[in-house]
Amino acid sequence: MLFARRGWRGTAIADLAAEVGMSEAGLLHHFGSKRALLLAVVAERDVQAMARGDSLFGPEGQEFLVRFAEFGEGIVERGGLARLFMVLLAESLDPGEPAHPFFVQRFRSMRSRVAELLIAGQERGELRKDFDPMVKAAEILAMSDGLTAQWLLDPDDVDLVAGFRSYAEGLRRDLSR
Amino acid sequence: MLFARRGWRGTAIADLAAEVGMSEAGLLHHFGSKRALLLAVVAERDVQAMARGDSLFGPEGQEFLVRFAEFGEGIVERGGLARLFMVLLAESLDPGEPAHPFFVQRFRSMRSRVAELLIAGQERGELRKDFDPMVKAAEILAMSDGLTAQWLLDPDDVDLVAGFRSYAEGLRRDLSR
Repeated sequence: MLFARRGWRGTAIADLAAEVGMSEAGLLHHFGSKRALLLAVVAERDVQAMARGDSLFGPEGQEFLVRFAEFGEGIVERGGLARLFMVLLAESLDPGEPAHPFFVQRFRSMRSRVAELLIAGQERGELRKDFDPMVKAAEILAMSDGLTAQWLLDPDDVDLVAGFRSYAEGLRRDLSR
Repeated sequence: MLFARRGWRGTAIADLAAEVGMSEAGLLHHFGSKRALLLAVVAERDVQAMARGDSLFGPEGQEFLVRFAEFGEGIVERGGLARLFMVLLAESLDPGEPAHPFFVQRFRSMRSRVAELLIAGQERGELRKDFDPMVKAAEILAMSDGLTAQWLLDPDDVDLVAGFRSYAEGLRRDLSR
């Protein structure tokens, strides 16, 4: 995939069009703009993560945290998409940016989804009840994104797989006491 | 501060020069380029964090984690610098980017520094010995950056202060068992 090799700023619409076998005009007509196209790629990454996540987002409570421990491996396999995600997110932090609403909604949805898995664990008596599931969901996503950024920057010095395991196992110990 | 109000892409050298009372030529002569100037601002943020961090980076072991629980408050006070940091970091993930070596070195140094505080806690018998301090240090910085990004994006929905407290308290419970 082009983004994975060159980063998104180096990726011209003409190259993208060639890669997917469409004309440049046809591709832009379909997505409206380069930014819309890039956001579609980011959204597709979430859809794919959710789909694997039969694996990740299916199981609830303790089992979710067991599966989450292995989540770093998938990120390593798809590093180029993770980099595109980071750049677009950083550019969209300001409310005036065109992709701002997309990312606000994306993170709200992800936090709610993770919180639901934790709440189910609380209701089944697998996880403690004295933590706020939304606060913990934000923390889980934060660790995931922050560690991915460190790994993208310096893969020789950061062990993404070990980091996810260590965090998820510690969290499971703490929340299931 | 200008960055805090407008984000860094909206900040022209002329505006920066006016803000600090120098000519544009004088400012560029001093720093060499706009990018060098922005990186100097990011580095200064770390220096300031370390200085407060008599508070944060002084104490070792359990006490470090107690202080870290309150770290979100300082980020809320200096949100504009955090945004500048996120944008420059995301742009510098690729090895070919001019600021790449700066960020690689910055994160290596921060991970080592946090790891030392954890090792001291292990040696004093305050923290368990069966975790890798460098892996845990990467996790601590990851949570901090990832949660800050969510908060910058959507301050109405993300409680940065509660997130730092919840994470640091859970980590302290887990590492001191």
